[in-house]
Amino acid sequence: MHIVVDRDALREAVNQVAKAVSSRTTIPILTGIKLTATHEECILTGSDSDISIQVSIPQQVDDKELIKVVKLGSIVLPAKYFTEIVKKLPAEQIEIEVLDNEVTNIRSGSAEFNLNGLNAEEYPRLPQLEEDQVFSISAQLLKGLIRQTSFAVSTQESRPILTGVLIKLEDGQLTLVATDSHRLARRSAQVEANQDTRFDNIVVPGRSLNELQRILEDQEEPVQIVMTNNQMLVKAGRLLFLSRLLEGTYPDTDRIIPTSSKTTLQIGTKALLSAIERASLLARDGKHVVKLSTQEDRIQITSNTPEVGQVFEHVQVHHITGEEVQIAFNAKFMLDALRVIDSGEVTIQFTGALSPFVIKPTDHEHLLHLILPVRTY
Amino acid sequence: MHIVVDRDALREAVNQVAKAVSSRTTIPILTGIKLTATHEECILTGSDSDISIQVSIPQQVDDKELIKVVKLGSIVLPAKYFTEIVKKLPAEQIEIEVLDNEVTNIRSGSAEFNLNGLNAEEYPRLPQLEEDQVFSISAQLLKGLIRQTSFAVSTQESRPILTGVLIKLEDGQLTLVATDSHRLARRSAQVEANQDTRFDNIVVPGRSLNELQRILEDQEEPVQIVMTNNQMLVKAGRLLFLSRLLEGTYPDTDRIIPTSSKTTLQIGTKALLSAIERASLLARDGKHVVKLSTQEDRIQITSNTPEVGQVFEHVQVHHITGEEVQIAFNAKFMLDALRVIDSGEVTIQFTGALSPFVIKPTDHEHLLHLILPVRTY
Repeated sequence: MHIVVDRDALREAVNQVAKAVSSRTTIPILTGIKLTATHEECILTGSDSDISIQVSIPQQVDDKELIKVVKLGSIVLPAKYFTEIVKKLPAEQIEIEVLDNEVTNIRSGSAEFNLNGLNAEEYPRLPQLEEDQVFSISAQLLKGLIRQTSFAVSTQESRPILTGVLIKLEDGQLTLVATDSHRLARRSAQVEANQDTRFDNIVVPGRSLNELQRILEDQEEPVQIVMTNNQMLVKAGRLLFLSRLLEGTYPDTDRIIPTSSKTTLQIGTKALLSAIERASLLARDGKHVVKLSTQEDRIQITSNTPEVGQVFEHVQVHHITGEEVQIAFNAKFMLDALRVIDSGEVTIQFTGALSPFVIKPTDHEHLLHLILPVRTY
Repeated sequence: MHIVVDRDALREAVNQVAKAVSSRTTIPILTGIKLTATHEECILTGSDSDISIQVSIPQQVDDKELIKVVKLGSIVLPAKYFTEIVKKLPAEQIEIEVLDNEVTNIRSGSAEFNLNGLNAEEYPRLPQLEEDQVFSISAQLLKGLIRQTSFAVSTQESRPILTGVLIKLEDGQLTLVATDSHRLARRSAQVEANQDTRFDNIVVPGRSLNELQRILEDQEEPVQIVMTNNQMLVKAGRLLFLSRLLEGTYPDTDRIIPTSSKTTLQIGTKALLSAIERASLLARDGKHVVKLSTQEDRIQITSNTPEVGQVFEHVQVHHITGEEVQIAFNAKFMLDALRVIDSGEVTIQFTGALSPFVIKPTDHEHLLHLILPVRTY
């Protein structure tokens, strides 16, 4: 392989695929980034075997030549060194030439590196997916859906399926659900899909979705998503993002979402968030427990760490109906939920001190958070 | 103690004194911030017994009332909680009232905290210094002097005196010297001082100076510095910064600075810095060794990590005189030195492959770096 490549284009591509490379892998070849020069493009690939990212640099964009291919071929270069070198090279063009024994010469201006590469034949091939189940969604919306749900996945490996986010599609309605069995987040949105595209037990690792959220640009451009039995492929322009899926059956969460409520209140999102942030300062006993009680047209939030002190907060409610409630919960769960609600007002529905309660934006039904209370009263 | 204090003024003061508080102290009272309300001001103090920081909030600034003192007194509040609480309180005014048993009630808007305090009588008193040895320097210049020298202190406790920066004053010339015995940084500047103010063995812990550099604002305003046998006091407006000094005799470093040279070259600071940054990417064998050799009107810089690869860099020199040189050194020392040189060109003076070499800005004599080479050629 022998190419001359535009530095900025290479930097961007390397930074993107490097996000999939883990330094902790036990498979030596996966510590590298694979470069492949074809007649039309240069393809970079990074992978930790769970997530793979592939970016192609085209020969030309808007009359600007990005790549000149002198000789076709492939090489795997150590990601740790290659990303740092590409970041620091001085000239606008970078020449990369594979010499004998995978030694790769990298030249740019007055700088010259010889980097020991690995044989690209040993790099695992990405799976070829049949594009049966395909739908489209704007990158911005997809990022939003992930941000509003993935924080709620379980971090414990005791129930591996809960470390993923359930993705369902039916009648063009996409739904993401995440739960760690103490709280749940659910978000829906309409997407472009064929009538017969539907799936209901696709579970993507939370870590994959967080990585995808970071790598996608915040724009209206649609991305295509292909689902198979064991892989998810996201196509965003010249970037391919591939993640394995989790095996197993995701629990039926619909039945735990209460359909009625004994107390319903509307309250300002930001005022409630600030009060709980302050209360949680003195709720550092490991369980982050704060207590909430309704008092006519306001709620009181309290917390207590015996050796440090107590806190008392009051927040006016906009509207309240139903019986009085006294409830205790993990402040962190409430903060996580409120922080991803973009609406100015939330509706909270309680069905007793020991039953899960629901937090929703008041102005739409696409987002729902459920929190299980803690028994203290 | 019972005061009503402006939130922004309190936040700023708390953030400043909290920098002196260490969570790892073994003296429980020092985990707290001391507040003292007098008729004229509220004084906040933080200390880890090496460094103490005191900030006073005056009753009034520019017609704006900052403090109303309802009842005089003192209290020590846990820094970890108090700083977080003050940061998050909702209203523009904060009321702090000490109740029984050092329990302190903090109110602001709809938020109310009861925080367990400690008896201020148990807080160590700051030493009272005799103001014999005093000089003035602009905060900006002082920050510059610290930045250009303190990085070179030793981090090893085997020779404790070298973990400090030597500060000398003679005939109004202030000089800072730091060395870890492998490299040295020296910076001088003229300051305002009485003719008879002079000292030559004041050694301030590097950590204290770094903390001082962070806390001082980057402005022309002069700060006053008071030196005694075992303490340094810096007065910057309403802020007092106090550091203990290191005991012992600082080595005589003047005699190791070469007075002649066999090879002298002038070179662009940024071009050299970039080349050595790149070369150091493949010099990660623990000693960060790069090699430099002169080649007519340019220098070559090389580095080599056998299992990863090699790098070759060329940098044009502006001017060179004397014999050819081949030398090896720790890239990190060179990068540290070049990064704090603000001039566009440096002069490097070599006196052989095994003797220390000198790097100076070409345009003035106030700053000097010395690096001991590594034996490899």
